[in-house]
Amino acid sequence: MGYTDLDQLAVNTIRVLAVDATSKANSGHPGAPMGMAPVAHVLFNKFMNFNPKNPEWANRDRFVLSNGHGCMLQYALLHLFGYAISLDDLKNFRQLDSITPGHPEAHDTPGIEVTTGPLGQGFANAVGLAMAQAHTGGVFNKPGFDLFNNYTYMFFGDGCAMEGIASEAASMAGHLKLGNLIAIYDDNHISIDGDTKCAFTEDVMKRFEAYGWHTEWVKDGDNDLAGIEAAIRKCQQVTDKPSVIKLTTTIGFGSKLAGTGGVHGNPLKADDAQGVKKLFGFNPEESFAVPQQVYDMYHKHAAEGAAKEQEWNQLFEKYQSEHKTEGADLARRLSGKLPEGWEKKLPVYKPTDAAVASRKLSEACLEAIHDVVPELVSGSADLTGSNNTRWKNAVDFQPPDLGIGEWAGRYIRYGVREHAMAAVMNGLAAYGTIIPAGGTFLNFVSYAAGALRLSALSRVRAIHIATHDSIGLGEDGPTHQPIETLAHFRALPNCMVWRPADGNETSAAYYSAITSKHTPTVMALTRQNLPQLELSSLESALKGGYVAVDTPNAAITIVSTGSEVSIAIEAATYLQEKHGVAARVVSIPCFEVFDAQTKEYRLQVLPDGIPVLSVEALCTMGWERYSHEQFGLNRFGASGPYKEVYAKFEFTPEGISKRALATIDFYKGHTVRSPINRAFQQIL
Amino acid sequence: MGYTDLDQLAVNTIRVLAVDATSKANSGHPGAPMGMAPVAHVLFNKFMNFNPKNPEWANRDRFVLSNGHGCMLQYALLHLFGYAISLDDLKNFRQLDSITPGHPEAHDTPGIEVTTGPLGQGFANAVGLAMAQAHTGGVFNKPGFDLFNNYTYMFFGDGCAMEGIASEAASMAGHLKLGNLIAIYDDNHISIDGDTKCAFTEDVMKRFEAYGWHTEWVKDGDNDLAGIEAAIRKCQQVTDKPSVIKLTTTIGFGSKLAGTGGVHGNPLKADDAQGVKKLFGFNPEESFAVPQQVYDMYHKHAAEGAAKEQEWNQLFEKYQSEHKTEGADLARRLSGKLPEGWEKKLPVYKPTDAAVASRKLSEACLEAIHDVVPELVSGSADLTGSNNTRWKNAVDFQPPDLGIGEWAGRYIRYGVREHAMAAVMNGLAAYGTIIPAGGTFLNFVSYAAGALRLSALSRVRAIHIATHDSIGLGEDGPTHQPIETLAHFRALPNCMVWRPADGNETSAAYYSAITSKHTPTVMALTRQNLPQLELSSLESALKGGYVAVDTPNAAITIVSTGSEVSIAIEAATYLQEKHGVAARVVSIPCFEVFDAQTKEYRLQVLPDGIPVLSVEALCTMGWERYSHEQFGLNRFGASGPYKEVYAKFEFTPEGISKRALATIDFYKGHTVRSPINRAFQQIL
Repeated sequence: MGYTDLDQLAVNTIRVLAVDATSKANSGHPGAPMGMAPVAHVLFNKFMNFNPKNPEWANRDRFVLSNGHGCMLQYALLHLFGYAISLDDLKNFRQLDSITPGHPEAHDTPGIEVTTGPLGQGFANAVGLAMAQAHTGGVFNKPGFDLFNNYTYMFFGDGCAMEGIASEAASMAGHLKLGNLIAIYDDNHISIDGDTKCAFTEDVMKRFEAYGWHTEWVKDGDNDLAGIEAAIRKCQQVTDKPSVIKLTTTIGFGSKLAGTGGVHGNPLKADDAQGVKKLFGFNPEESFAVPQQVYDMYHKHAAEGAAKEQEWNQLFEKYQSEHKTEGADLARRLSGKLPEGWEKKLPVYKPTDAAVASRKLSEACLEAIHDVVPELVSGSADLTGSNNTRWKNAVDFQPPDLGIGEWAGRYIRYGVREHAMAAVMNGLAAYGTIIPAGGTFLNFVSYAAGALRLSALSRVRAIHIATHDSIGLGEDGPTHQPIETLAHFRALPNCMVWRPADGNETSAAYYSAITSKHTPTVMALTRQNLPQLELSSLESALKGGYVAVDTPNAAITIVSTGSEVSIAIEAATYLQEKHGVAARVVSIPCFEVFDAQTKEYRLQVLPDGIPVLSVEALCTMGWERYSHEQFGLNRFGASGPYKEVYAKFEFTPEGISKRALATIDFYKGHTVRSPINRAFQQIL
Repeated sequence: MGYTDLDQLAVNTIRVLAVDATSKANSGHPGAPMGMAPVAHVLFNKFMNFNPKNPEWANRDRFVLSNGHGCMLQYALLHLFGYAISLDDLKNFRQLDSITPGHPEAHDTPGIEVTTGPLGQGFANAVGLAMAQAHTGGVFNKPGFDLFNNYTYMFFGDGCAMEGIASEAASMAGHLKLGNLIAIYDDNHISIDGDTKCAFTEDVMKRFEAYGWHTEWVKDGDNDLAGIEAAIRKCQQVTDKPSVIKLTTTIGFGSKLAGTGGVHGNPLKADDAQGVKKLFGFNPEESFAVPQQVYDMYHKHAAEGAAKEQEWNQLFEKYQSEHKTEGADLARRLSGKLPEGWEKKLPVYKPTDAAVASRKLSEACLEAIHDVVPELVSGSADLTGSNNTRWKNAVDFQPPDLGIGEWAGRYIRYGVREHAMAAVMNGLAAYGTIIPAGGTFLNFVSYAAGALRLSALSRVRAIHIATHDSIGLGEDGPTHQPIETLAHFRALPNCMVWRPADGNETSAAYYSAITSKHTPTVMALTRQNLPQLELSSLESALKGGYVAVDTPNAAITIVSTGSEVSIAIEAATYLQEKHGVAARVVSIPCFEVFDAQTKEYRLQVLPDGIPVLSVEALCTMGWERYSHEQFGLNRFGASGPYKEVYAKFEFTPEGISKRALATIDFYKGHTVRSPINRAFQQIL
């Protein structure tokens, strides 16, 4: 232990930097950094292994700031330890196009593991990172080769503690006995509305004990550096449980407003900021001052981290020669490459193949590729048998002593915890050795909206297997039938929504999801059987949209997705037979992928001169980009056998034909431009 | 106590009805009803006060089946006690247009208080119902007039217990010391993936103790009717805490598959169903058999309930004469009417009035109407100062012994629990004496998507005050800037999204939200100041859309909402001055309300012959219904001062003008039909 004035100076340097950056930005949250600087100092300087020159080192300790609004704490630390964040970057805190935005964003800022700020997300990300360590260690560690043994440290505050997503993740972590996960709870008694006694009076530590966590309490988190160190050491010694340290701190320590909500989300007033500097022995007239000896101390620790990475690299080299197969697999995963030729295993279907539900087609993909894509880790939020997410010989990811799985297991039992599942998947993906897939009903992906948004924003590859994707689920009724859900996730930037119509389209969805390294995928899949289409192929589906029925001199194009494509094809026949009207049919299983094709191609699919009718048994919103008229369900569904539900809402060849005829009629005598033609480009 | 064979016969009748209905439907969940029939019998027949002939009696005990998939339990009980659910209705379980859908829906089925099924929702609804009882009692009860003292009983299973929303709600309920809330946890060790040991090994009761709940355990929930009764009585005696009874049961009790996941979500096989009937002394060849003595017993209890309602009605009559003001207020609330003339209090603005942020305009509405609309209960998910949801002299809703509020308080501190907040609001609204309003950032309404969906489906009036509604929030950055959010909630059926552009539009939003008895509202409000518009008025805004700038011979119509309307107006001036182009501007603060206007009116607002450009600083999806071309943000935002963020993405008079000119150019020489003209009507 033996903490000196230098340690205190480092702590205060962090505090003052947070004051300066929020003051200069005239925006931001100084309170949490000022309160948590002591624990951050002890953790980063005494415990954490990392190399600022290579933030991607595979076995680095992970740090997650779940209370992401306190990000000046993290930015200050990253700067002081020598990550590629300059003092100018700190001065640009919260400014346009800086690498120090208002909340930490993983994709742009070196040393930020996951994107946090929306409360509770980082907590669940950290659980995912710790699961990833346990899994990756389980797969690759060998006697003498403890390649993956890093810790995941996470800070969270009262806000995170109140969020349901954190509760879900904490329960999971306790069940999974994640010994390398150490969380530090900033018990500062303040949230935005003031004293936590107004809304949050539960016994937080008792709750974590109920989840199966080890708990510690440091009563003077403002000053007791040795106590903090001792508590973290004790947590490290508990290897069969995640740990949480309740750290009682004073928010905004050093400010006149210390211990009040006033210092949470607003910069300090000028005189208060000066007072803080005086109190901590800094020149009140100077800003962004960093004593050289603080840099020196932190750079020394960073150099030790770099040396540890060197050792690890040597160990990994030896590993690669002694365990060739595993070594090659790991080296490949760390390089970000997929296994050569994996895609050849994806099932291919002929039109004469049997009709199959797309949830089963998805299962067939998992069955076919799980051997050749060993980084694929599947799971479900307690709907395994309905989501068809588990390949036959899958082993569960479980602590071995439970006797029902092992760390190397590749099937995660997420429990009924959709929101945590999605955020855990973000953590799994961020670790770097795993491609996570997780299932629930499409309707309940909405429970996870907050986490999916961050998948998209932080550009992680996470695959959401979303079955029971429409009124086609039938009897469970409107409480379970998605209506707005596809529009919601299609509206989310950098999120691919696939709704395959048959086997080849489902295989294409998997190809797209697995090869899109920086984009999450929602795969909307049916409960009911779907016939194999005549013109579908992996290649055409991978264009996001293609002509499924080509008819010369067509009077109308019907565009559709998933289960409605085959009904649209029947409608085309019906139109020809009953009305002598020629109709084309287009399948657009993925808007985002179709949008990325050349304009020339998109105009071939949706040509000028022919009016377009869209058909999808969910809300019509979003279809206007690809059609002139829209047939969908802008109301809630109904409980009943699914064919009757389809008939009630007229998703039948006849119902589609009626609207196709109305569309043809409406555009008669008008110049029809393809909806692909637009007046100007969108900002992307 | 003294349970007899008749009690056992009643229990088994419920079990057999659940078997028969799921068998006939060939769909549904027999397991939970068979396991929970004993506690349901004891609770409904020994404890609950209700009158099946008047399911709306204000002081009835409330029952919520949070594990809503077990709804045959509830339907069977409602039938047996004499609610307007016939044996034929049970035979129509899960059939199209029946009143016995796959999960319980409040709006169509007598005796169903709230719509459940999506796990965890009912749990939080029940907390809301119990809060409503405490509040309504706090407001109206007087010495000798204990008008509101009903209990709220709620069943939940492992699935609900795992959901974060239930954790949030349980923490709230513990903080609020809701003594009249009694929950029964179906501890059957089974979820869909099989034994709960695979994902859910926490100590549930210890967790509830940590939240501040009283706990009981009945070890033989299958048979121990007396034990169940004793546990409920003990819970009733604990008046300063909510209570939970862990009831260890066997899922599918009586079936060959009892105690396994096989009986959770599938009807019993024919021989198994027959075996159950034999075991319970029923004729295995007969279906939907109800012994008359079971009807008799239950009808007797129902008659006692009816008598209690009579007593209550007499008490209420006396109350009305002794406490005239409160009596009249309560009678009015129960009639569903709003106070006469309340709307005259809504603020009205002149164009010369100062620019104000719409979150502040919303605060002004609350300030103006809270006195005249006493059923309005506001609150925030720990963002009170940012959401501006609290009127100046508001009193917090708190247990009085905390010393920081009282039961009659009309401001709820929801804590950082957005999902529970929305579901609690559904419960508050369902009680019948409250109009709930609750605030968070628009971006975090997404956390509550699951609950909002049920607000819309179950047709409750809940007002979501959603501030910081775009990139206009500035520095907090893309983690907090909604993009897809408005499209998401606009796509949700029966949900009104208001995005007012100024003071009069904000007042209109309040008028619309408060008078829409069967529709929830999301009010998207700015952080930044907005000028008062020249042509806005309560009347025009209440049409959902209106002409904000009328210009003769306009070459383009610019439609917009909220903070972008005034920029669009500046763009119209810019177009005239710099390009000699005449532009109209239309404000559409609420799509749903605009859609409800006559086609004639809508065509006046968006006439044929003039191309329409939409402008909104969120994703463009959904705007195609009102415009030919769309200017929006189909990517994530940026962290920085908000004016710089707006400039970056070209939401400026110049940026809008550029696109307006491109739009005019694109439609030159083409017949332009208003987007209001469609080829066919949507199914609604």
